Amino acid sequence: MTHTAPGVLEALRAALGDRVDVSDAARHAARADKSGHAADDPPLAVVHARDVADVQTTLRLASETATPVVPQGARTGLAGGANAGAGEIALSVRGMDRLLEVRADDLIAVVEPGILNADLNAALAPHGLWWAPDPASRAISTVGGNIATGAGGLLCAKYGVVRDAVLGLDVVLADGRLLSLGHRTVKGVTGLDLTSLFIGSEGTLGVIVGATLKLRRLTTGDVCTIAATFPTVRAAAGGSAAVTAAGVQPAIMELMDAASLAAVHALLGLPDPTPGAAQLTIQTDGAAARTEAEQIAAILTAAGGSVALSHDREEGERLLAIRRSMHPAMESLGTTLIEDVSVPRSALPAMFDEIARIERDYGMTIPTVAHAGDGNLHPNFIYPGPGEVPAEVWAAADELFRAALRLGGTLTGEHGVGVLKRRWLADELGDDQWRIQHEIARVFDPKGILNPGKVFA
Amino acid sequence: MTHTAPGVLEALRAALGDRVDVSDAARHAARADKSGHAADDPPLAVVHARDVADVQTTLRLASETATPVVPQGARTGLAGGANAGAGEIALSVRGMDRLLEVRADDLIAVVEPGILNADLNAALAPHGLWWAPDPASRAISTVGGNIATGAGGLLCAKYGVVRDAVLGLDVVLADGRLLSLGHRTVKGVTGLDLTSLFIGSEGTLGVIVGATLKLRRLTTGDVCTIAATFPTVRAAAGGSAAVTAAGVQPAIMELMDAASLAAVHALLGLPDPTPGAAQLTIQTDGAAARTEAEQIAAILTAAGGSVALSHDREEGERLLAIRRSMHPAMESLGTTLIEDVSVPRSALPAMFDEIARIERDYGMTIPTVAHAGDGNLHPNFIYPGPGEVPAEVWAAADELFRAALRLGGTLTGEHGVGVLKRRWLADELGDDQWRIQHEIARVFDPKGILNPGKVFA
Ligand SMILES: Cc1cc2nc3c(=O)[nH]c(=O)nc-3n(C[C@H](O)[C@H](O)[C@H](O)COP(=O)(O)OP(=O)(O)OC[C@H]3O[C@@H](n4cnc5c(N)ncnc54)[C@H](O)[C@@H]3O)c2cc1C
Ligand SMILES: Cc1cc2nc3c(=O)[nH]c(=O)nc-3n(C[C@H](O)[C@H](O)[C@H](O)COP(=O)(O)OP(=O)(O)OC[C@H]3O[C@@H](n4cnc5c(N)ncnc54)[C@H](O)[C@@H]3O)c2cc1C
Repeated sequence: MTHTAPGVLEALRAALGDRVDVSDAARHAARADKSGHAADDPPLAVVHARDVADVQTTLRLASETATPVVPQGARTGLAGGANAGAGEIALSVRGMDRLLEVRADDLIAVVEPGILNADLNAALAPHGLWWAPDPASRAISTVGGNIATGAGGLLCAKYGVVRDAVLGLDVVLADGRLLSLGHRTVKGVTGLDLTSLFIGSEGTLGVIVGATLKLRRLTTGDVCTIAATFPTVRAAAGGSAAVTAAGVQPAIMELMDAASLAAVHALLGLPDPTPGAAQLTIQTDGAAARTEAEQIAAILTAAGGSVALSHDREEGERLLAIRRSMHPAMESLGTTLIEDVSVPRSALPAMFDEIARIERDYGMTIPTVAHAGDGNLHPNFIYPGPGEVPAEVWAAADELFRAALRLGGTLTGEHGVGVLKRRWLADELGDDQWRIQHEIARVFDPKGILNPGKVFA
Repeated sequence: MTHTAPGVLEALRAALGDRVDVSDAARHAARADKSGHAADDPPLAVVHARDVADVQTTLRLASETATPVVPQGARTGLAGGANAGAGEIALSVRGMDRLLEVRADDLIAVVEPGILNADLNAALAPHGLWWAPDPASRAISTVGGNIATGAGGLLCAKYGVVRDAVLGLDVVLADGRLLSLGHRTVKGVTGLDLTSLFIGSEGTLGVIVGATLKLRRLTTGDVCTIAATFPTVRAAAGGSAAVTAAGVQPAIMELMDAASLAAVHALLGLPDPTPGAAQLTIQTDGAAARTEAEQIAAILTAAGGSVALSHDREEGERLLAIRRSMHPAMESLGTTLIEDVSVPRSALPAMFDEIARIERDYGMTIPTVAHAGDGNLHPNFIYPGPGEVPAEVWAAADELFRAALRLGGTLTGEHGVGVLKRRWLADELGDDQWRIQHEIARVFDPKGILNPGKVFA
């Protein structure tokens, strides 16, 4: 990383003043997201952009000096995509956090990229509206980051992922030009769908500086919560497959294996769970919430589950809190590599068999939770940190990825490729597609200054 | 169009035998879709591909000889995108029409591109499944064509457009290489979303030879139909906006203006409608169909509508038949240029005002129907045909496009750009974005042999 032309810092400071932060603290923090992985050395500076013009200026100057730029939201990513290192400029849009427009009649909102997902939804609630993507990090991650990673969440089997909830984007290209992509309209097929191309592009195509979001009306009616315990994780996976196969659509359907349950119970000071037992936590909502909950309870009982059903919202939140405590519970055990494979829903039981096999072969415990409603699993590899992921863990993760691909699945359901998964990207895409994707990135960014070394490396 | 290297036809026939059709009838038919526009001269040949290898062979030979290729589905398009002319090869995938796989547990189907939308849905129904995109042409258009145009339909405000209903695509590039894009999983963010890029790409990036579709379970419960008559089209548009603003979600909400109603009534031999009156036809379905229908009836009555409500499916189909007869009714009046602007839903009344203004300024009648639930309008310009669209009509259409853009809308909600709208594309995209889109197309097709002159021209 020695592209840096001398003078870029001076030029940035002349143009942007104290929005250019060269303090050790800021530069050190900018090295890492929440993946457990960090760049070896700090970046040149962190630019705290205040508006679109700041982003344009930064990119124009970076382009002129061939200085690499790493777009950053809240750095909650789990793939190392926002990590900024030696010779690079970290460009943070976290400070551009305004909600610019809400239209209840058109079900759209226009936002700046740095607004936190939860803050947006708090501001939308009085209008009776919400933006559906709900990563478990919603209180701490930005809408721009959610879009740049194509984030999913707990509710997405029923209410969709980011890809389903963005109509248009304003983006700044590597050379500083501003483009408006997409529409304010529900439909629109004018030319190529560049909005979709930016969703999940992890900062490699341009910097998202504005977004027109597709909203939903707040769901009214009951919320019912079901917790079902099964003797084995395979039985729990079978239970969730039975729910999907029956055509009921839960809002949330989360699966926790025995090791996950045990870790969370320990963290929260709850009594130890039955050894080997796995749990499904399911929520239904909307007009048919009660009927669906009863139907699901019957299906899970028939599938061998021991079922508790609650019609109380608060009791429901208490049950879900167990699932939501997974991340801190893992952190309490060591440094975590959180994986993110996704398989067709019917392959969930087979994927759990593969994980059990890898655990046996490598003599590891791999606590795993799954968004069972859409087949997305998060196996957690835990190692004594900090520092690089041990080779042994990568070898086991490699087997995990290959197993997911064999089952018709994918490397990453929602966290993205970043630095952590770039070496497997061509395995999934094939060399031809990898090259085409890389060439497309070059159309937007001919000099390759945007997030170099991420995704395509 | 004189790129044709001598010998391409011979090479094609040597490789593909009688799948290469040089009959006058086939070549003549391949000149035109349903847009009313046709290429001046017929193409060299029509290749009727039987499998993926046929498509690969055709494109490899075309690439080697720099011969332009026009991908064709059922040629029901309304933008001239599938029209094949002098020196070109029409590559029809209509014959590749198999349903390869249906998975009720994973809610996916794998199809060849030439299957008709209605045939697919007839085959899915016994599984209790359907593919939601429902262009009014569903009985005659292909799933591959629906994907290549990013088609919409009557149900899409509630059930989504093509973009929401495709998980993965197999595509053949200009040089004959086969790529697999996307996933079989619900979620997946590995690299750039090339699947979405192909949706609506109108044959400019590659030929779709297979698709993994996201299915829904058939909606059970009642279907209720409402027909509401309003004294003016503006009042009807206001009625539909009031329904949307109230947060009810009809499955179908179609608006017909007075000229459309009159033409359809004449075609079907029904009594003349009240002069000036416009009509909303609305359907609700699913568990809440009846409650929603009653709520809508009350809203429309309050908005000045004269409302009829039916809980009978057949009576409902009879009411909708009036809307479905729009296309033949227009054909009975002359040659039609069907426009396709889309505006934010709240701008529907203003867009009807603009159409009235253009009618006055140009002394024309522009019968207009709208998918009011999503703000997509189809104004019909009628002229004595066949032959080129008169300059006067283009001038009026030009005003229509500019009005839609001013109101925050777009040139085309669902029909695409093809040849008919290419000259306005840069107006909407801006020159920078137009160039980037064109460069992306060149990444897939460096020689520009795929559908040249369409979209980007
Ligand atoms: C406890 C916890 C739970 C989580 N749960 C989920 C979950 O359920 N689902 C899920 O999908 N993810 C989850 N994540 C991961 C993470 O929160 C998401 O990836 C989130 O979308 C990242 O947002 P961010 O603002 O932190 O982006 P960052 O981490 O700052 O950046 C992520 C990537 O996007 C790029 N980027 C950020 N902003 C922009 C921009 N404006 N323009 C261009 N590129 C940009 C960066 O370069 C980087 O490649 C979780 C993380 C944690 C720590
Ligand atoms: C009566 C009538 C009603 C209609 N109603 C609607 C409606 O409600 N909504 C709507 O969206 N459209 C509607 N249309 C337009 C048309 O039916 C759609 O655009 C349809 O999706 C086109 O499908 P097709 O198979 O006929 O494609 P074609 O007309 O053959 O091709 C359309 C475009 O797609 C490309 N293409 C086709 N197949 C492939 C492939 N396999 N790979 C790559 N490129 C391909 C062609 O090159 C062309 O650019 C209507 C048309 C008619 C005649």
